[in-house]
Amino acid sequence: MSSIDLNSDLGESFGQWRMGDDDTMLGIVTSANVACGFHAGDPSGILRTLRAAAEHGVTVGAHVSYPDLVGFGRRNMDIASDELYADVIYQIGALQGLARVAGTRVRYVKPHGALYNTIAHDRRQAEAVIEAIQDVDASLVLMTLAGAPLVTWARDAGLNTAAEAFADRAYNADGTLVSRREAGAVLHDADLVAARMQRLVCEGVIECIDGHDIALHADSICVHGDSPGAMALAGAVRQRLTAAGVALRAFAGPHS
Amino acid sequence: MSSIDLNSDLGESFGQWRMGDDDTMLGIVTSANVACGFHAGDPSGILRTLRAAAEHGVTVGAHVSYPDLVGFGRRNMDIASDELYADVIYQIGALQGLARVAGTRVRYVKPHGALYNTIAHDRRQAEAVIEAIQDVDASLVLMTLAGAPLVTWARDAGLNTAAEAFADRAYNADGTLVSRREAGAVLHDADLVAARMQRLVCEGVIECIDGHDIALHADSICVHGDSPGAMALAGAVRQRLTAAGVALRAFAGPHS
Amino acid sequence: MSSIDLNSDLGESFGQWRMGDDDTMLGIVTSANVACGFHAGDPSGILRTLRAAAEHGVTVGAHVSYPDLVGFGRRNMDIASDELYADVIYQIGALQGLARVAGTRVRYVKPHGALYNTIAHDRRQAEAVIEAIQDVDASLVLMTLAGAPLVTWARDAGLNTAAEAFADRAYNADGTLVSRREAGAVLHDADLVAARMQRLVCEGVIECIDGHDIALHADSICVHGDSPGAMALAGAVRQRLTAAGVALRAFAGPHS
Amino acid sequence: MSSIDLNSDLGESFGQWRMGDDDTMLGIVTSANVACGFHAGDPSGILRTLRAAAEHGVTVGAHVSYPDLVGFGRRNMDIASDELYADVIYQIGALQGLARVAGTRVRYVKPHGALYNTIAHDRRQAEAVIEAIQDVDASLVLMTLAGAPLVTWARDAGLNTAAEAFADRAYNADGTLVSRREAGAVLHDADLVAARMQRLVCEGVIECIDGHDIALHADSICVHGDSPGAMALAGAVRQRLTAAGVALRAFAGPHS
Repeated sequence: MSSIDLNSDLGESFGQWRMGDDDTMLGIVTSANVACGFHAGDPSGILRTLRAAAEHGVTVGAHVSYPDLVGFGRRNMDIASDELYADVIYQIGALQGLARVAGTRVRYVKPHGALYNTIAHDRRQAEAVIEAIQDVDASLVLMTLAGAPLVTWARDAGLNTAAEAFADRAYNADGTLVSRREAGAVLHDADLVAARMQRLVCEGVIECIDGHDIALHADSICVHGDSPGAMALAGAVRQRLTAAGVALRAFAGPHS
Repeated sequence: MSSIDLNSDLGESFGQWRMGDDDTMLGIVTSANVACGFHAGDPSGILRTLRAAAEHGVTVGAHVSYPDLVGFGRRNMDIASDELYADVIYQIGALQGLARVAGTRVRYVKPHGALYNTIAHDRRQAEAVIEAIQDVDASLVLMTLAGAPLVTWARDAGLNTAAEAFADRAYNADGTLVSRREAGAVLHDADLVAARMQRLVCEGVIECIDGHDIALHADSICVHGDSPGAMALAGAVRQRLTAAGVALRAFAGPHS
Repeated sequence: MSSIDLNSDLGESFGQWRMGDDDTMLGIVTSANVACGFHAGDPSGILRTLRAAAEHGVTVGAHVSYPDLVGFGRRNMDIASDELYADVIYQIGALQGLARVAGTRVRYVKPHGALYNTIAHDRRQAEAVIEAIQDVDASLVLMTLAGAPLVTWARDAGLNTAAEAFADRAYNADGTLVSRREAGAVLHDADLVAARMQRLVCEGVIECIDGHDIALHADSICVHGDSPGAMALAGAVRQRLTAAGVALRAFAGPHS
Repeated sequence: MSSIDLNSDLGESFGQWRMGDDDTMLGIVTSANVACGFHAGDPSGILRTLRAAAEHGVTVGAHVSYPDLVGFGRRNMDIASDELYADVIYQIGALQGLARVAGTRVRYVKPHGALYNTIAHDRRQAEAVIEAIQDVDASLVLMTLAGAPLVTWARDAGLNTAAEAFADRAYNADGTLVSRREAGAVLHDADLVAARMQRLVCEGVIECIDGHDIALHADSICVHGDSPGAMALAGAVRQRLTAAGVALRAFAGPHS
């Protein structure tokens, strides 16, 4: 039987500001990318999310970011390697501390926003992140964009990786994501998205934007919870996969 | 033979701003209260201090604070218990992560500035800090002001504590510190300070501001490194104690 | 004919985080307390709110705060007078700059959250705020809690003040607000609230929590927009007052 | 008689952290680039610097930056135009407010660090800054790197500009600065630097790194105050120019 992980970004409220609906999403996903305070998340809010993840048996990852609250970690930043290295460790450590009191553990690292996009192909910054993970806890898995150069760099360095596909994004023929600036880059039809994800998991293919199928391997599917529409789409993906007999299972158990 | 710990606040630079001379102080003290980013310290600077502490064999503590960079953690803040609880764990966790890659461990917690003063006598905030430490790592020692109500609250809760005396401060007859607003509150004569610390360690007494001796038990002596004068005074205390045959030894080993 | 001002807190989004519905509220109120970046509001978001206020002909005030984003300015902070003085001027100046490019002007100052509550009765901090306003622009009106000692201090110092009543709050017999910790402190019945505000404006009285009427003078009524219920209540107050022939008019024109 | 402006970065302390020696530098320069809180400077510290500048009759400029305290504004940031536009206005407005109570005025704008370098040649970000200045106060002068494309863009937009040369930097044959990564990029010999600046002001030429003279027009010379050596060099430039009969005069008077 096939199995797959579903992941989503959680813990992204900050102080009085709410973002997303963590409780609903924790009923859908198997892995939670939890903000660490650099792009979102204050300690007491992060802790609430971690406790809820522990209750739902959802695996926790560190959603590390550039230090940029006002920009939500979405702005590229030309950060020195030693600063990025220490920033990543600081965030992982902080989340590990909060996870411990919430009765769970940090099992993986998923870089956020601009950092995610940059290290997919920027070797200098990628190496700072890889080294940080290895030095603080070599058992942590690095979640990456399927097919990115980062996958090879991380594996060559001895890190375990989990490749993810994006449920609501169109793919180019070379396996890269269609840029958000182009028409059709983001998919909104829940049925279509669910069907695409079923094929991805069961057949290892996805129809790219020019209409041909391409092979794509994914260990996890990223869904979003930042709008009612996004949550409905996430729920549809879960239902379709379950109905198709796919086991939804985190690539790393919450306590293993 | 008598022994005592010497502690000081380190890692308090931030970005381009330097504070103190960590390398010099690491040659004087046996325990380093390392900033965690809330009143001072950025991740890469904290990491440099932790690596230097590891090289010197100096024990590391988490110098946790209210979140107040611009106020350097010196302003009282009416923070909710759940926020303070999570803030303390976040800081300890972050420092633990950085300590791990620096080849050392966080062995104790010393609250900083306004938080230090407040929890010495404010039970609500004290309990949030005590609970945070117990939940994240019950083996951590809480460093407290000798004689404060906090000592009892912490011990009653099952926490190990280390009481500290301040080398450069005058004491009232009841064992409390003379307020900085009063004349004579801060001592500047290195010989006098060193002699007072020798008596404290060897005889368990300190001359209070009215001229009488009072009994005072200290597990650690706090010295400062934020000015050349402060560092000279710290060096004088170390020399005098060493010359008197007192062993300078952290109350907790760096790796035990 | 009677007239009254309606004010509300706006511009409180921050980066990707949304708070309130500024566009709807700008159709209800005559004065907008706009966040200045210390408890909420980033520059581009503040500018959007200022432009919308200018379009609606709504008068703009500076909603100055303690520097505490994560606490939303709701935590008391023991800030030095010279720091508070400079913080207030910095925020007013920043808002004045943004108001200028939005085609409007800052006409008043309303302290936010913990600062609002503290300076209502704490003379030291109140004087720092009063002095800041006078020094940066003596024509600015200080909006205060009706009946608070601050009103007298500000007037004695030569500052114009506008007293405000809270539409959704119960009052004690001495004219102070019933503490939120007590039952019945916050009113939710839109008809009742609207009727109370009509009496306040037309008769100068409000029924306090023990059932007796007390005299209360208000230059402005504060309504909230942070929930659909709050906005409905604000709309009900406006409708009732308009139906009763009360002119809704800012105590200071947007351009005068 | 020739005349020239000397400018330096001031007000760059933050909270408890000191940087530079503003009082000494205010005795050397005629224009002060004052930090606005985004890369350095807290409100009360900025106010102290502004008051000292007013006392010394030194003209004040807004040293605006990307929002990056921990990186000191030295890291490139891929910021959206509307965010940069509003950030610049917010900073100028805040400084204008503080300048008013200090008895002076903001007369010019000098972008800081990575923003300075980026807008010298990046047209999108340059236009956001130019538009911000024009909208908030079109009388403000933009201080730019002599010879950069920014000079033309700003003038074409109708902005007054002041071109600056760097006292302690070597120049390429095309008038650009020798990169700090190359040997000889930074000059440390005070006599040599002073002599170069005398030629620049009196003859309009500077010897570039390959030994030939090139023409360079400067309205201002930038000197630094972040180390005793830098301050000595700044003092030497001032002395040499004064001895050569050059009038040291801000390109814009503090109150005009």
